[in-house]
Amino acid sequence: MTKAIRMYDLAGADPNRRFSPYCWRIRMALAHKDLAVETIPWRFTEKAAIAHSGQDRVPVIEDGDRVVSDSWAIANYLEDAYPERPSLFGGAAARAAARFINSWADTVQNGGSASFVAVDIVRNLDPRDRDYFLESRAKRFGMTLEQFCANRDSRIAGFRQTLEPLRMTLKSQPFLGGDAPLYPDYIVFGGFQWARTISDFALLEASDPIAAWRERMLDLFDGLARKNPGY
Amino acid sequence: MTKAIRMYDLAGADPNRRFSPYCWRIRMALAHKDLAVETIPWRFTEKAAIAHSGQDRVPVIEDGDRVVSDSWAIANYLEDAYPERPSLFGGAAARAAARFINSWADTVQNGGSASFVAVDIVRNLDPRDRDYFLESRAKRFGMTLEQFCANRDSRIAGFRQTLEPLRMTLKSQPFLGGDAPLYPDYIVFGGFQWARTISDFALLEASDPIAAWRERMLDLFDGLARKNPGY
Repeated sequence: MTKAIRMYDLAGADPNRRFSPYCWRIRMALAHKDLAVETIPWRFTEKAAIAHSGQDRVPVIEDGDRVVSDSWAIANYLEDAYPERPSLFGGAAARAAARFINSWADTVQNGGSASFVAVDIVRNLDPRDRDYFLESRAKRFGMTLEQFCANRDSRIAGFRQTLEPLRMTLKSQPFLGGDAPLYPDYIVFGGFQWARTISDFALLEASDPIAAWRERMLDLFDGLARKNPGY
Repeated sequence: MTKAIRMYDLAGADPNRRFSPYCWRIRMALAHKDLAVETIPWRFTEKAAIAHSGQDRVPVIEDGDRVVSDSWAIANYLEDAYPERPSLFGGAAARAAARFINSWADTVQNGGSASFVAVDIVRNLDPRDRDYFLESRAKRFGMTLEQFCANRDSRIAGFRQTLEPLRMTLKSQPFLGGDAPLYPDYIVFGGFQWARTISDFALLEASDPIAAWRERMLDLFDGLARKNPGY
């Protein structure tokens, strides 16, 4: 019997509220590969718990003796370690192209989303994470979260415009993977799931084809992502 | 003996100056598949010459009795009609992901580049295209080309920032296709080749990893793209 993979997963005051976009990529990838997972709720300040990974961010997975961090590296590890299970990428060329989508999501999508939803993370944080989070983000953004997320109603149209490559793609095919979801879908979905989990601010208009795709993603794996606390 | 594919290819006053980003995608794709091509220099005002394609833009290819327009449709046609030749996409999943890169290039890359180089098209145009081009672009942009391309020195840093997903990808692998070029490389290269062919304005800094990749692309197929007149 194979032991379940263990995964350190960013959690809020409610330990069931898992809100890291990068952890969600891997939760979905593990489900895609039908691999059992035991998630360990983890808070920003629990650096010691993942020190054995050689760095201080989640996701971190433990698969037997193997410890792997960084969502892209984990997805590649899972693909290569479990080749007999459903492919996450669909071949070498698709894996190479997924790298572009990963880079787009890390910068345009998640960087952009942060300026709308980051301010709402605070109310969902575990109390012991609050000071750390406020201080580290003020340092990262060079301003308070309120300042960073100011005027979001007047800026949201501009953000939605930056999603046009995603929108155009989803107008012509149901998933980034084509007819069925693949890792690029989990990459991008992770960002929207992060937003949904911490904020009631609407990143998407209801009529947006991206919103319809997001609903399809929330339905996958018996509603795995939909069951997570969210707005 | 197979007859060469015929391709209508946007040309300037110098008939060897081929400057459509979408035509360059297909020129490179045809070379990738090692398919012989006879290109027909075409000007914006020669709508009648391609009326048999049912629309009025290039690229248009004629492969025997088949007439295909739209670069994405042509790439897919070539892939499916010549499966025994080197694959342009590398499988169904990669083709699906290429759609995202195509959408990104059409909007972020080419839409962005236009506001730097479009003004320089005019000096390279065939005289009979000049009035048509100036009028149609004034209508499309709602301003003159000079206005549309104003202040480019102060805007270029912002444009380069929008290329970050491309830059990040090319820092981790030599081509968008991975170890070797595939259609996503030709998609994105087409935009840079368009710029190079019509304008001496530097879209990229020499130290940019994207510039190094562009050099690799210019070298492909015995310097096919490098031989084209350019700045």
